[in-house]
Amino acid sequence: MGEGFGRWKLKVLRTKGPDEDLMRFVDAANIACGFHAGDPSIMLRTVQLCKKHRVKAGAHPGLQDLIGFGRRKIEMNLDDLHAMILYQVGALKAMLDVEGVELSHIKPHGELYFYMQREEPVMRAVLEACAPFNVPVYACRNEKQQAVCDHLGIPFQQEVYVDIDYSAKGELLPVSKSKPTTPEICASRFRLMAEQDQTRDIDDNLITLGFNGKPFSVCLHSDMPGALENARKVRQVVDEVNRNNGVI
Amino acid sequence: MGEGFGRWKLKVLRTKGPDEDLMRFVDAANIACGFHAGDPSIMLRTVQLCKKHRVKAGAHPGLQDLIGFGRRKIEMNLDDLHAMILYQVGALKAMLDVEGVELSHIKPHGELYFYMQREEPVMRAVLEACAPFNVPVYACRNEKQQAVCDHLGIPFQQEVYVDIDYSAKGELLPVSKSKPTTPEICASRFRLMAEQDQTRDIDDNLITLGFNGKPFSVCLHSDMPGALENARKVRQVVDEVNRNNGVI
Amino acid sequence: MGEGFGRWKLKVLRTKGPDEDLMRFVDAANIACGFHAGDPSIMLRTVQLCKKHRVKAGAHPGLQDLIGFGRRKIEMNLDDLHAMILYQVGALKAMLDVEGVELSHIKPHGELYFYMQREEPVMRAVLEACAPFNVPVYACRNEKQQAVCDHLGIPFQQEVYVDIDYSAKGELLPVSKSKPTTPEICASRFRLMAEQDQTRDIDDNLITLGFNGKPFSVCLHSDMPGALENARKVRQVVDEVNRNNGVI
Amino acid sequence: MGEGFGRWKLKVLRTKGPDEDLMRFVDAANIACGFHAGDPSIMLRTVQLCKKHRVKAGAHPGLQDLIGFGRRKIEMNLDDLHAMILYQVGALKAMLDVEGVELSHIKPHGELYFYMQREEPVMRAVLEACAPFNVPVYACRNEKQQAVCDHLGIPFQQEVYVDIDYSAKGELLPVSKSKPTTPEICASRFRLMAEQDQTRDIDDNLITLGFNGKPFSVCLHSDMPGALENARKVRQVVDEVNRNNGVI
Repeated sequence: MGEGFGRWKLKVLRTKGPDEDLMRFVDAANIACGFHAGDPSIMLRTVQLCKKHRVKAGAHPGLQDLIGFGRRKIEMNLDDLHAMILYQVGALKAMLDVEGVELSHIKPHGELYFYMQREEPVMRAVLEACAPFNVPVYACRNEKQQAVCDHLGIPFQQEVYVDIDYSAKGELLPVSKSKPTTPEICASRFRLMAEQDQTRDIDDNLITLGFNGKPFSVCLHSDMPGALENARKVRQVVDEVNRNNGVI
Repeated sequence: MGEGFGRWKLKVLRTKGPDEDLMRFVDAANIACGFHAGDPSIMLRTVQLCKKHRVKAGAHPGLQDLIGFGRRKIEMNLDDLHAMILYQVGALKAMLDVEGVELSHIKPHGELYFYMQREEPVMRAVLEACAPFNVPVYACRNEKQQAVCDHLGIPFQQEVYVDIDYSAKGELLPVSKSKPTTPEICASRFRLMAEQDQTRDIDDNLITLGFNGKPFSVCLHSDMPGALENARKVRQVVDEVNRNNGVI
Repeated sequence: MGEGFGRWKLKVLRTKGPDEDLMRFVDAANIACGFHAGDPSIMLRTVQLCKKHRVKAGAHPGLQDLIGFGRRKIEMNLDDLHAMILYQVGALKAMLDVEGVELSHIKPHGELYFYMQREEPVMRAVLEACAPFNVPVYACRNEKQQAVCDHLGIPFQQEVYVDIDYSAKGELLPVSKSKPTTPEICASRFRLMAEQDQTRDIDDNLITLGFNGKPFSVCLHSDMPGALENARKVRQVVDEVNRNNGVI
Repeated sequence: MGEGFGRWKLKVLRTKGPDEDLMRFVDAANIACGFHAGDPSIMLRTVQLCKKHRVKAGAHPGLQDLIGFGRRKIEMNLDDLHAMILYQVGALKAMLDVEGVELSHIKPHGELYFYMQREEPVMRAVLEACAPFNVPVYACRNEKQQAVCDHLGIPFQQEVYVDIDYSAKGELLPVSKSKPTTPEICASRFRLMAEQDQTRDIDDNLITLGFNGKPFSVCLHSDMPGALENARKVRQVVDEVNRNNGVI
């Protein structure tokens, strides 16, 4: 008994994870690179799943904190951050190269993502490490990050979340500070974002996102309860909106 | 995606594990001590569960191999083994002391258990490290181990498994080499052991266990698919057999 | 090449560390418990060295951060801190019990020590976890910590540092923010502390310590350059002061 | 005290390692990739040192065993080995790409190297993972490995060791089973190899290497006592032999 550790529990033997099912509903996957989650074998299998399902494969580097799943604050110096990004993205890139799949994007994970938002030198160090890979960096709307990406010549892909909350200031809240959700809430949140350029913050007030018709992606957590159903419902609305807009 | 590692997957948020449910069906728990699984917080909560449910609390030390869940062969020198056992059992013991619960027994985990069976110096090193805690060591019937325990003055508690297989020689097989099972199979295996002193090996031949009426315990894996149902069914037969024998 | 990691380098083969030499100059050792440094085998050997040299053996628990040697800020919840202290001190205690050596004291390591100073709930959580071991907790003069220890009935042992610096407010500075030192500086700092109840802060201004003749211990880092020589020189002054005061 | 772990000790603060000095004596460096040693920052700095000193930079992947420095036997399945090699070499390659340095070669480390020699499926799995990087794999003379490399189209670079021993069968012995050596012994061993195509095994008997004039490289451990002096002395003989043969 007691055979979990940190945020982990043992995989029940002889079952497969939900990752393959999720592949049917997503255009792009953020693949954990071994520091907050993932190991070389899981990474390679996930790359192979992306290839099979023609899903774009992005790197999902995180802080070196398996026990905390990369969601705890850990202070790092900028040189270590820089090298850590090269290491993780490089490790994934070798697997993509072997499978003949392109690196699609880079998406900083969990606390690394929030660390970048809180401290501009951290944001710069991470983005400078991403720059040589020459792919878009995904993040929530963030003017500073947009400016740094522009300066470094890195494409910046805006994204939204529908399974965690936004603060009254429009800033993303961590999983631990967000309210539980349902597939229906996720889907209706997405519809409001796509159709009205708005969402509701954690106090249920409307906030404007400001996409003004520009494309954005929607990010879903694969470790939430009901993650598969969240993805299925949101996908339906994505397809509907895209059809209505003549995108697909 | 790909956010497991080794034999681990993320706990779905806001759910509780099966450990508390299992507590209703067991007399004693083997508590992982942080090397193959478990972390300090999970250990302490498991100790508190044992206390609440009046379940005996034993230490379940393992090899230092989180990624492999302590089931991979790792070569160790005897001094390191000795110190590693003291460390793990001592860490659990401090938590038991704080909660006012007695250390009930020590049960080596996974590959450490098989390592002891394969190499007698390893068995001696582990048992010598267990000796100062002055509690029974649990293991399958094993004459050599029985002899070393007798020599060291350590009580030796024989146990059987019903959710993994025995070889034709009567030796326990690792999870990876055993066949899938069901709660019904587990229960009928236990009945045969308790009533006939026999079990069927992996080739379905009868082998005699040789308990000759002496008490033994039955060990179940909490990470098997259907672990809770396995425990429930076996418990029914345990209670029935004990009633029939006037033990309870 | 490049075969270090974090703050670590490989031990040159077939040499022994300075720990045994240091034993000649100290009354008490803070033994790392495996989270920021130390492994079970090194812990057990250090316990045996303490026994051989009749040096008091204290537990030196730290944050779980081998790569950062427990000197990086890592955010932890209070329950995890509590369990982590029980785990580490308990692991050492089992080794002390086996060797028949008493646990002398508990000394939080590195960033854990500073974390306690910065955040009072952290200090309380750590001290409550220490309380059941019923030994003094070592720390720099700190009125809040003194008060919490008094409340919990934990003996509080004040200590000073002579190989790192104090701020103008009299607060201890981390190794990374302190100036390099020499054995002579360490010794003369100690003399000033012992004879005048004063030290010089990082700006060379005199600050009063306020021991008013009460006993205190002096802590030295074993990983500083010249650590052995620091210890030797300071020990001479300690002995001289104690003789002059009729303590030895 | 006791603040090492496994084969590690703390770097004394404010000193630099011997790696930069060693760069003056070597043509190629094997850079640890984070599994048995090395972290991202040390890897990047070592790549930068190689660039500065125009030393060839090779990947030195190892088993995931920091505490054992990759020198303990750990059983792995072939898929995990394959992915582990891609991960480590890929991580280094990203750093080399950023610095504009070519990946020169791959050299399996420690127990991984011996594992490949003992078990042919392991050798095949590792070499197949190396193949896509399209650089020579370094190893001691080994007919089977040569044949697998030929089959996979991987250049195979033979090498010799002069600071550890050979068995009577001409097989390399691990560090732990080799005798201590000196810079003079290393140099004279190399001279015998280069001039007579021979070396002395651990029992001091002559064995023939069989290079027959083909080029080979000589590998030195950077963690041996006197590693720098070993490298200096051997380098002198290397240069002398190469001059005599008109190679430089």
